[in-house]
This record gives sequence, structure tokens and C-alpha cells, in this order.
Amino acid sequence: MNAPLIIDPTLKSWIPYPIDSDFPIQNLPLGIFSKSDGITKVCSIIGDQVVDLFGLYSDGFIQCPGLDISDLASGYLNKLLQKGKNTIREIRKDLVQLLSEANTKDQSLIKNHLYPLKSVKLHLPVKVGDYTDFYSSREHATNVGMMFRDPANALLPNWLHLPVGYHGRASSIVVSGTDIKRPKGQIQLKDGEAPILDSTRQLDIELEMAFVIGKENKLGDSIPIEIAEQHIQGLLLFNDWSARDIQRWEYVPLGPFLAKNFASSISPWLIDLDALEPFRTNGPEPSLPLLDYLRNDKPSNFDIELAVYLITSDGTENLICKSNSKYLYWSMSQQLAHHTINGCNMQIGDLCASGTISGPTPDSYGSMLELAWKGTKPLLLKDGTTRSFLLDGDTITIKGFAQHDQYRIGFGEVSGRIVA
Amino acid sequence: MNAPLIIDPTLKSWIPYPIDSDFPIQNLPLGIFSKSDGITKVCSIIGDQVVDLFGLYSDGFIQCPGLDISDLASGYLNKLLQKGKNTIREIRKDLVQLLSEANTKDQSLIKNHLYPLKSVKLHLPVKVGDYTDFYSSREHATNVGMMFRDPANALLPNWLHLPVGYHGRASSIVVSGTDIKRPKGQIQLKDGEAPILDSTRQLDIELEMAFVIGKENKLGDSIPIEIAEQHIQGLLLFNDWSARDIQRWEYVPLGPFLAKNFASSISPWLIDLDALEPFRTNGPEPSLPLLDYLRNDKPSNFDIELAVYLITSDGTENLICKSNSKYLYWSMSQQLAHHTINGCNMQIGDLCASGTISGPTPDSYGSMLELAWKGTKPLLLKDGTTRSFLLDGDTITIKGFAQHDQYRIGFGEVSGRIVA
Repeated sequence: MNAPLIIDPTLKSWIPYPIDSDFPIQNLPLGIFSKSDGITKVCSIIGDQVVDLFGLYSDGFIQCPGLDISDLASGYLNKLLQKGKNTIREIRKDLVQLLSEANTKDQSLIKNHLYPLKSVKLHLPVKVGDYTDFYSSREHATNVGMMFRDPANALLPNWLHLPVGYHGRASSIVVSGTDIKRPKGQIQLKDGEAPILDSTRQLDIELEMAFVIGKENKLGDSIPIEIAEQHIQGLLLFNDWSARDIQRWEYVPLGPFLAKNFASSISPWLIDLDALEPFRTNGPEPSLPLLDYLRNDKPSNFDIELAVYLITSDGTENLICKSNSKYLYWSMSQQLAHHTINGCNMQIGDLCASGTISGPTPDSYGSMLELAWKGTKPLLLKDGTTRSFLLDGDTITIKGFAQHDQYRIGFGEVSGRIVA
Repeated sequence: MNAPLIIDPTLKSWIPYPIDSDFPIQNLPLGIFSKSDGITKVCSIIGDQVVDLFGLYSDGFIQCPGLDISDLASGYLNKLLQKGKNTIREIRKDLVQLLSEANTKDQSLIKNHLYPLKSVKLHLPVKVGDYTDFYSSREHATNVGMMFRDPANALLPNWLHLPVGYHGRASSIVVSGTDIKRPKGQIQLKDGEAPILDSTRQLDIELEMAFVIGKENKLGDSIPIEIAEQHIQGLLLFNDWSARDIQRWEYVPLGPFLAKNFASSISPWLIDLDALEPFRTNGPEPSLPLLDYLRNDKPSNFDIELAVYLITSDGTENLICKSNSKYLYWSMSQQLAHHTINGCNMQIGDLCASGTISGPTPDSYGSMLELAWKGTKPLLLKDGTTRSFLLDGDTITIKGFAQHDQYRIGFGEVSGRIVA
């Protein structure tokens, strides 16, 4: 395994972009795009220009040993991920060379493979086999425990010992921009009453991040925490849409089901873990001693600023939450070591989401349930209306970026509009 | 959609098999096999002869319009399932004609495509995208509620209103015959104590059946109960291995996770729903009125006898449970109507398991947890040893069949041996 590809922070590209662009030459994430012909191919992005990797490879600008043209002519990144981190490092290295300011050669030929972001369609980047959702923010778990269980014992006894997680639905993961249909389900309006069937009245969001598996482990084998990141190719923004009224009625004793599996939205760009290397930080100090398999001396959290916007149907943007992934009590490495301690096998393209990322202050809570505190403190929006949960026509956009003095590693956004 | 293919119960084949064969000419399930060359192909089975459908099609014995040779040259049934119920009906119709006693033509040519079951390897029949586990036996839910919650209120309030279910792990589903490695995990030995990391001491089984999706619904669309069976291609035996000590510690509040996702075993033959048509029966009468979307006038349970054997390492077979799928309170149609009421999309090859199928009597309980009643009534085996849970070297085999006066529709078996 090669070392992470750290791109010189001072490096500039001959393609212009503003200082606060999500996609400088230090980022170069992977995605899937199509032009008007509808044919899907692997791409990257710099500034607001989508970079056709299939085209660059076809014309000999990318010369990565072991890479096959079919790896880049796919509807998903999975085939490319199968080739491993080092192959993707080679591709990103080639891109840095091609796009850096110093390269005055072939610019017009390279430009043949650049397309304005607005002119193309972005697709779901990975075919997700299994999707796991963790519950790794202490603040979120505490808030939920206070609202629904015992305020004095908000955290359940297992929470500080292991990263609680559960399986979610892979088939209903959609890419940013896909409308979200308000789901129907059983709702119990009053304790002791029979449930009714109706559209959810408590449609909510969960601000999450997710990582994508780029290297498999065999069934029966565990992934030790020290090498967990070798199995993680990159990260995405994740919105775990949730219907709270359906959830409250259905979730005992086996967990959330129809309250969640109607849709989850992800951002289209897979931000490489290498690009996030400069933003590594320590997570919160554990409150209780951890079992060895969950102990990691290396800082394994990442300082990624997150923001949630509620856009009303008139187009007005309301910032409703500012949080940060560094608040997560359990890191990705801990999640993956725990997930596989029993030998569970991870496959290329599998997705593990963080759970709602709430911070310490009320404006950093990552769900409307918490922001409006179970409906007792409705959010006042710019148009004068209030929200405890989402209305039809509302759009939720989550943005995220890691900020360096000289550049920003952005995630783009994950957005979805509620329709009846 | 054509009518179900009901095969004449008096029909015999020119291939000999005993009256109690699992695989008479009335069954003709689908599977995936390979010979010593390792190449996987679609097959069926009659008696103890595996029928190479790829070979029969190549030689022109199956002439199904719309079928492509690649549908039969696959590692999974998914491509064939994609072609729909009617295509599979045509294939099974051709097989009936080829294999029936009346057909004296070409027997030696057909025999070229038959292989003794013992000479081939059977594979996982479907590539499972998403796997859902229900909890649809009232007796099982009641037993668990009595043991772990309140004996007076064993069923939770939602249980009689909806088929409780949750998402499981698809990647760790293995075919019958695969060894099961005893998983490690966090175990809390005493309330209030910190957990330890150790191999499970409470490795258990769950006797289940599962259905396979053969027709998709779009995200956002529900499947009405009246047509739910059009989306179900067939059924399998399912063993949901469970580590009870890991489960007890981890499962609140989001449900079972590592206690289950280390492995689930399925039988290799997809028994067509058409073959089970003669065994349709009514399920238990609902104790509470149901919401309309869960009401179905048609009998939707199936009378399938189930048996669980524990085979000790000396090879001695102990029958430890006899149950029947007709006991299930919630039918497959109800499960599917509920699963999609919120618009959740089902994909070809998705698997929905029933949950543990316990019957009314203690010898019909579908898990060791219930059979040995939480360790208070250990099972006495023929070799003089006792079991509350599984030991290394134990093999669990689940068998199932639907019995007609003139033939039996068998499921074969799902078997797995515990290794350290």
C-alpha cells in the first residue's frame, strides 16, 4: 500500500476557480456523469468543470497500469474501486499533473474532456450492496434519549462501549437532486389507540456523513482498527430522511424500518480519504475505557464543517444547522473495526453512515426533531412561517467542506425536495 | 400474467424417484450448479438428478421466447428472474414435457444434461440486494416477550397491527453446506458490568423461510396486497444464526446487528410459488381488525412442514423441532404490502425472511432459546449430552416439504456446521 497522496497546498491549476471552490486541484473526487446521450462514465471535477476520465484515458492522458477502459465506462464506481487505492492514487496523480498550472502542454486537448457542471447529469456514484447506519454522535443519542426515554439516563448502557449501528435499506438510496415522496405508513395518534394509515406528518432529516468501502474482507475475518482506513476509499454527505411518527410506532423491538427505508440521499462526489488527510483530528476523549479492538492511537476524526439549509418553495434559503463531523464520538475506524469484529464481510461499494451529527449547541443539532425539540420550539423561517417538521415543497440541502488556509476540500451538496 | 402452472398430481417421470422424493416432476425448482470445471449455470432438479438448463437450451430442448442463453449461463438466478414469471412458467412447462413418462423421445439426449446431485456443487441461487427479516410468528414473539420482557404483556402494542420487520445483512448470506464460524463480540456477563470481548457462548438458530422477489416496484410505488404474489417468485429455507449474548447487549435501541450479520444460511433451491399452489391455506384469524392495506380475502399461508435436526459431531441426528409455515400470523402478501406501503422499492433477488417460525407446542419452537427456554430446560441429545445453545462441531439441518397424497414438494435442506 502506497502512502496517501497529499497534494501540495500551494498548487494551482490552469483552470480558474475561486478560492472557496469546493473542488480545487487538491480535491479531485470521483463521480459518475452523463451528457445528453445518457451514457454514464467515471469523472472527477475541478472548479465547476466536470472531468471526463473515460475520455482522458481513451486519449492517453491517463496511463495507469492495471486500469481497464471498462473500469471508467461504468454506471458505478464499483469496478474502479475494485482496482484498489493505489490505482486511484495513480489516476489522481495523473490528474494533478495534467491540470496543474505548470502544465502548459495539451491544454486544448484536455479541455475536450471538460464539461461545465451545469451541462451534465450526475448519478449515484456507487452501487451499494449493504448500507449500515451508525448512531455515533453522543449529543444526538443523548438528545433523543432525553426526549423519548429518561432525561437522567439518556444514554443507554451499551452506548459508551460500542458504536451502536443497524442495517438500512440499500435499494432506496438516491442521488442528490432526486425528489423525496412523502411516505405513508401506520401512525398511532394516541397511546392505546389503533393506528391509522396516513402520510407522515413528521417528516424529518438526519445530517450524516457516510464512508464507502474500497477493499473487502472475507467472511469470518475482522478488520483490525489499525488498518481500517485501508478499507475506506472516501466519504459522502448523507441525508437519512426519517418519518418520526411512523418510527415511534414501529421501532420496538427491532429498530427503525419503514420510517427510514423510503429514501436516503447521498451527494454525488466521493471525496477521497487522501484529500482529507490534512484535516485529521482527535475525536472526543472516551468517557469509559474501551476494549482493545476499539482503541486507536492515531487521530481518526476529520474536521469537516457541515451546514443544513431549508429552502422554502419560494426559493428562500434558511440556514437551520451548523455542525462538524469532528464531534462524532465514534470514528469511522472504530465503526469498521466493530462492524467486522464478528467476521461480517464488507464488500466494495458498501456504505456506512455516521448517524445524525449533532454538536454541543442547539443550533448544531442535526435533525429537526432536535432543532425544534420535539415540536416545542418550532423553527422560525425567513418567510415568517414555522417548521417542526418538513412541509411539501420544502427542499433540504446539506453542504460540507474542510477548510485549509489555502484551499477548501468541499463535498458539494446533497439536496432533496419533498413532494406529496 | 398467465395463470399459475399447476402440474397434474398424477404425472410421473421416466426418471425414477421414490414417492417421498423432495423433487418430483411437480416441483422443478431453480438453482445454480457447477461441475468440476467450476462454471456456474442455471439448473433444476428431478429426483436426485440435477438438470442442466443451460445445456438443454443450447441443444434446443427448451425453446422459450425471450430467453437468452446468457440468462442461463449466470452465477445467479437474477438475470432469469428479470425475465418474469411467465418465462419461468414456459421453462418449467418445457421441462414437464421433456421429463414426463409420456415422452419417450430423445431420452438419451436429455440424459446428457442430467448429473447426479452428489456429483455437482450447488451455489447461492440469488445475488441478494437487500434482505429483510420479519418477525411474523405470534408464538415466537410471545415466547421472546415472556422471557425477556413482561410475561403478562408479552406482545408489544404494534405487533398485532403490522408485520414487524427490520433490515438484515445481505453480504453474509451463504448457501447450505457453508461452515459457520462462531462469532466474537461484546458480551455483558452481568448487568452493570463492563462488557468483555469473547466468542459467543449462546450461538442459536432461527428456523425461517424466505421469499425471493421476482418483479420490481418503482421507488415511491406500493405493492397492493391483492397482487403481492405476482412479485414473489419462490421460497427457500432460511436459518438466521443468532448470538443471543451479543444480541442482548447491543440491540437497544436500534435492533439486532452483529448478533445476526455474521452469517445467514439459505437452501440452494428456489421452490416456485406455482408449485406450492395446492398447499395454500388460511393463516390464523387476526385477533384485531386490520387496516385495509393488510386485508386479503384469499388464503395466503402455505402448509409446509418444517423440521430442525441437530447433528452432533459423531454424526447422530437429533430431531429438535417440528413446525409448519402455516402457523405464521402474517403472510408473505401482508409482509410485502407492508414493506412497500411507504414506497420502498423491491429489487430482483431481494430476500424477505419470515422470522422464527414457532408453533403452539414446545416441540415446535423454532429456536434453541425457546426450545431450552432460556437455558432452563436444556435439550437432551441421543449421545447423552445436553444443549442450551450450539457447540463447535454441531451441525444444524433444516428440512421442509409440502405433502400431497400423491407427491411431495420438498425444499431440500439448509445445513451448516459450527466451527471455532
